[in-house]
Amino acid sequence: MQFYDYFRSSAAYRCRIALNLKGLEPERTFVNLRTGEVRSDWYTKINPQQLVPTLIDGDATLTQSLAIIEYLDEIHPEPAFMPKDPLGKARVRAISQTIACDIHPLNNLRILNYLTGELGQSEEAKNQWYVHWVTLGFTALEAQLAASADTGTYCHGDTVTMADICLVPQVFNARRFNTDMTPYPTIVRIDEALAQLPAVADAAPGKQPDAV
Amino acid sequence: MQFYDYFRSSAAYRCRIALNLKGLEPERTFVNLRTGEVRSDWYTKINPQQLVPTLIDGDATLTQSLAIIEYLDEIHPEPAFMPKDPLGKARVRAISQTIACDIHPLNNLRILNYLTGELGQSEEAKNQWYVHWVTLGFTALEAQLAASADTGTYCHGDTVTMADICLVPQVFNARRFNTDMTPYPTIVRIDEALAQLPAVADAAPGKQPDAV
Repeated sequence: MQFYDYFRSSAAYRCRIALNLKGLEPERTFVNLRTGEVRSDWYTKINPQQLVPTLIDGDATLTQSLAIIEYLDEIHPEPAFMPKDPLGKARVRAISQTIACDIHPLNNLRILNYLTGELGQSEEAKNQWYVHWVTLGFTALEAQLAASADTGTYCHGDTVTMADICLVPQVFNARRFNTDMTPYPTIVRIDEALAQLPAVADAAPGKQPDAV
Repeated sequence: MQFYDYFRSSAAYRCRIALNLKGLEPERTFVNLRTGEVRSDWYTKINPQQLVPTLIDGDATLTQSLAIIEYLDEIHPEPAFMPKDPLGKARVRAISQTIACDIHPLNNLRILNYLTGELGQSEEAKNQWYVHWVTLGFTALEAQLAASADTGTYCHGDTVTMADICLVPQVFNARRFNTDMTPYPTIVRIDEALAQLPAVADAAPGKQPDAV
């Protein structure tokens, strides 16, 4: 396996946690998002979306972090990232997608660059944009997690699921933008439990070889 | 089953196609996104994210369109929305997520309202934003679909998958914003094939009881 990674990418961070939990150690290539290497000819041939992560497994090229995580879970079933029952799976996917579809895409680097570049917005307006969307998303997620009997030590019961794999990078990212986390005690509690796991801690951006 | 819908929501439109393909006819409630009904107390109790769609099945409340579509596919396996092999599943999920994570969230109503409201952008700048992100996304998707031997009559082979269910509303939406579709012949060809299916055609926004 070959994994195309960037230390600060939340989507790559999710996959690093997943790979660590499965005990997989693919060869890694780091693709710099800041310098525009992600839009280079060589990388565009691998991933036309010009996004990280990409996973190469044999002849297959896999993109999109959640698709990669479910793929890893199917070919390496232990430890399982998904509950067995359809409703449990739907809940884990919904939490994952709340983060991956409704929070993260609004706040990644290419969007923030468009705000300050093409739209001529100030750093302050950019930061307000960030906090606005993460606040909306976390407020809903906190309500859903706090209200559900399915929430346990982690987002869904007492084993780590794809939902947790998505939560950790989003919390990291929110803290980087100085988001006040006190309104989200359930999210904070789960994130703290996850941080105790070496597979999670070792995937942190600051611990990667390309961290600057 | 109870389905919370809005005619113009792309995410609800995906689920309408999925429900039609499975031959399911849930009771429907229409939640107006334009008037802010989606942020009302009564609907926030059902869906704290204040987004459509929501599906109620027995005691369970399901959110997030892709999670709902995979749930419907698990409890009503025919016709199948997903290939059987892990790589095929990963490809279908990746195409779906390219649309649902990297194109659609940037262009839905709440984002466009923030651009013209909080950020004081003109209608022209808003439309440029729309076309910018859909162009980036469709360019990558066209390259991926055109290059792959897995692409058939539809996005993945000759049966309708979740990827197609995501494609139709995104193409509809792009056309509504006058996106030039000529650079995307594979996307247009697949969309035309899908439009022939009554389950797809009947899910169109203009055919819904709440269409205005």
